[in-house]
Amino acid sequence: MDIKKDIEFIVLLEEMKKIQRQTKIIGCDRRENDAEHSWHIATMSIFLQNYSSKDIDINKVIKMLLIHDLVEIFAGDTFAYDTIAYSDKEERELNAMSKLKSMLSEDMAYTLESLWLEFEQVESKESKYANAMDRLQPILSNIYSGNGGTWVKHHVKLSQVLERIEIIKEFSNEIYDFIYEHIQKNVEKGYLISD
Amino acid sequence: MDIKKDIEFIVLLEEMKKIQRQTKIIGCDRRENDAEHSWHIATMSIFLQNYSSKDIDINKVIKMLLIHDLVEIFAGDTFAYDTIAYSDKEERELNAMSKLKSMLSEDMAYTLESLWLEFEQVESKESKYANAMDRLQPILSNIYSGNGGTWVKHHVKLSQVLERIEIIKEFSNEIYDFIYEHIQKNVEKGYLISD
Repeated sequence: MDIKKDIEFIVLLEEMKKIQRQTKIIGCDRRENDAEHSWHIATMSIFLQNYSSKDIDINKVIKMLLIHDLVEIFAGDTFAYDTIAYSDKEERELNAMSKLKSMLSEDMAYTLESLWLEFEQVESKESKYANAMDRLQPILSNIYSGNGGTWVKHHVKLSQVLERIEIIKEFSNEIYDFIYEHIQKNVEKGYLISD
Repeated sequence: MDIKKDIEFIVLLEEMKKIQRQTKIIGCDRRENDAEHSWHIATMSIFLQNYSSKDIDINKVIKMLLIHDLVEIFAGDTFAYDTIAYSDKEERELNAMSKLKSMLSEDMAYTLESLWLEFEQVESKESKYANAMDRLQPILSNIYSGNGGTWVKHHVKLSQVLERIEIIKEFSNEIYDFIYEHIQKNVEKGYLISD
């Protein structure tokens, strides 16, 4: 073990507190960062586990959510509805993962990459659960902000949101129905473009 | 399950992003908040697990770290070296835990309270691991900021820091020795009061 290298990786994690996402903190005029977002979804995955329609390994879900955005330390955040930035997202993130791995011991590099790839592939039931959390949180933020949040700022269409929340339906019909109702209310208020 | 209540709890978690700690983010003129801190230590517990002198259930450590500061939503943050605020910390936090529990379903309230009590009691090896992470992170922040951080601002004494890091020694001699050396350098630079 190379302690200096390992501690420097822990200090590098600090950068996650400086990567801004589009979503604003409810009741604050400040955008959320990756560290806050990752904490929120990892923690909510614990408290929402009873809603899961499938038996899942919650510990794996939590770990995936804690590390899922680490590539953004080198690749930056890509807004969900930004189609241009999405075109080279995969390449940027794969390069970032290589860089992160080079800073870790072999077994930790393996742990990180496996969890991240599983999250990205959205195939295992744990990955689907984790991705559902990742999509649910900014939607709750837009709903509970009471002002449409990023939907208004970025002229988002209803169809785009409905496409992104399909995975929440797979996680839990009950939660899907709950947010679907609120999304419809946001269309009525003009915060989401009906299409 | 009461979905409205459960979702409102998830939205309440947002408050953790507004609770400021004393520690400043390295390279930023901004204090860290509870959400960022909790993410950092939960994530570092994954990457430092090979240093643990004992066999531990890392999943329990992670969960403890994610929820260990939730009481601060109602009780506020208490600075480690603030002896006056520490005098009623326990009472404030027990009341906060009751309030949090009342917002959760019975099994989730039980999960939250058990993890939190185990963390607070610092008896199990998982709790000791988790508490070591909680103490290590602000120390790394002070060391790597290069300006003594909260040690300078609050006129902290070496003996106070050494007392707080005893638990890191139990977690890993190697990490203890590494930070001990850096702490001594901070005494030499005048960032920590030698006593």
